[in-house]
Amino acid sequence: MNLAIVGASGLVGRTVLKVLEERGISPDKLLLLGKSSVGEKLQFMGVEVEIQRADPNVFDGVDYAIFSAGKSAALQLAPEAVKRGCIVIDNSSAFRFHDSVPLVVPEVNPHRAFEHQGIIANPNCATIQLVVVLNPLLKLDPLKVVVTSLQSVTGAGQRAVQQLRLELNGEPCEVILPHNIAYNLIPQIDSFLDDGYTFEEFKIINESKKILECEIHVTATCVRTPTIGAHCQSVYIEFPNPVDTQTILELLSSSDGIEVVDNPASQDYAMPINVNGKDSVFVSRIRHGFDTKSINLWIAADNLRKGAATNAVQILQLLLNSK
Amino acid sequence: MNLAIVGASGLVGRTVLKVLEERGISPDKLLLLGKSSVGEKLQFMGVEVEIQRADPNVFDGVDYAIFSAGKSAALQLAPEAVKRGCIVIDNSSAFRFHDSVPLVVPEVNPHRAFEHQGIIANPNCATIQLVVVLNPLLKLDPLKVVVTSLQSVTGAGQRAVQQLRLELNGEPCEVILPHNIAYNLIPQIDSFLDDGYTFEEFKIINESKKILECEIHVTATCVRTPTIGAHCQSVYIEFPNPVDTQTILELLSSSDGIEVVDNPASQDYAMPINVNGKDSVFVSRIRHGFDTKSINLWIAADNLRKGAATNAVQILQLLLNSK
Repeated sequence: MNLAIVGASGLVGRTVLKVLEERGISPDKLLLLGKSSVGEKLQFMGVEVEIQRADPNVFDGVDYAIFSAGKSAALQLAPEAVKRGCIVIDNSSAFRFHDSVPLVVPEVNPHRAFEHQGIIANPNCATIQLVVVLNPLLKLDPLKVVVTSLQSVTGAGQRAVQQLRLELNGEPCEVILPHNIAYNLIPQIDSFLDDGYTFEEFKIINESKKILECEIHVTATCVRTPTIGAHCQSVYIEFPNPVDTQTILELLSSSDGIEVVDNPASQDYAMPINVNGKDSVFVSRIRHGFDTKSINLWIAADNLRKGAATNAVQILQLLLNSK
Repeated sequence: MNLAIVGASGLVGRTVLKVLEERGISPDKLLLLGKSSVGEKLQFMGVEVEIQRADPNVFDGVDYAIFSAGKSAALQLAPEAVKRGCIVIDNSSAFRFHDSVPLVVPEVNPHRAFEHQGIIANPNCATIQLVVVLNPLLKLDPLKVVVTSLQSVTGAGQRAVQQLRLELNGEPCEVILPHNIAYNLIPQIDSFLDDGYTFEEFKIINESKKILECEIHVTATCVRTPTIGAHCQSVYIEFPNPVDTQTILELLSSSDGIEVVDNPASQDYAMPINVNGKDSVFVSRIRHGFDTKSINLWIAADNLRKGAATNAVQILQLLLNSK
């Protein structure tokens, strides 16, 4: 099996390498591809691998490629890779809403991974952790889901992390995010659409429908926070009938990919500092909302892992295991 | 007019002094009171004032006292002050739900300030900014309000601010908050109640009813964020009938104490870094929720000012102006 990682030196690319190592996925040939990082070397299973230029021809003989290089690189190179017989798992938003491109979260809709025509899309980081939690609750017919998504600077890449670090040190820096972020909250992730929503919010709302394959009503507000380690979500869910919190807890606890951490008495709940580096989606603070027909809960997941790298590697594993 | 500030050296106490100066409120005699800070000197209108011990007898001859010294100091000293003819404006949660104690936000229920029996309670910081915004929307009969409240470390006092600073510097520090806060989010403010809510969430939900004088249905999730300058709230509101966002915008813009800042095209919205030091409540990102019967919006206000000191000084001004 020959595997290429496009955007290997980025935060997601590096995490993909880590997750592959942890899972013992050792390609016969590993190609690390990039643009500005060409010539840099990264370690994989104790071996140094040099990053090569991501040109169309490098995909000759490559079986699978995980793209974490942004939308324009994906639009340009993914079709070239596919043309050469490569199956692309793309982390960008370039193809997510194409009818012929499955949008896959392995705990939710693994069967869709096999319906690809060369490209499989990895959903948005904030969408992934939300749908993993909503999926087991679908049997309770949720009517409405109100999400406030609190997102780590790592979601905006290395330069945003650098912005935060330099700002905190009082050093001059390039402002990559829409505003300064140290000690601040920015109620904007990605650009604004005409309806007043940001594209990040649009992604959460609409990718959820495609992945869950139903007209689930989600509304979202996305906020960039000066945090590292996870995206967190404060979620309100309304049901047509009364639900008890024990049922919710059991549905979630027994679902693949979810860990419930909910011990108020010992101040035990999921946070960026304790979910960082883990592959699960964590759920805490499960309680009724206004009455027994609604609940509030708190979701946290490492956005570079389950929100990106881990989910992409899981898709790769689905494909490899089916052979 | 003789005025005492109890807890003068705290973050709120110092902000009270600043707001009094800005508003030209110059007492005939100003008493600064404290416990651990006795002997320290603070500047007020160019004069150094020494902090004295907050004992019952110091309230003899004091007309008004603004308490920002926490619940136990308030429980102990406020009745003593009242006994000596002093009117107390208390920032703590000690008396907020007493039937005989008005809970006042001057833009919302100023008339209640005059119904006191010696003590007037200043609401919780997160409640104040929420009710200022909900009040003009009451005429649209809101059915449900879902709030995620993102709260600055300054809301937990100077030692929490110190915790954040030291953690960010990688220095050892006393952990005042329930967990480490640098780069983190803590979905707990104040202690947990039996129903899974925190006391901070309870305050938002129940103080809103008392101040707005109606059975408004609010549910809340409160999160401590590594931020300084303001509390921010992501708010979803459902109405029985369709509302247009222009109506919402006009109702809010024309209300005392509210400034609407909502220009997505220029990435212009309220954040801790741009509302810090201001007395208004700021509203941004006004847009429909699931349909025209619901809206989402974003609220930000300086929690030490409108959330605490400014609101207390406004109550004092109500009392002074009525004489």
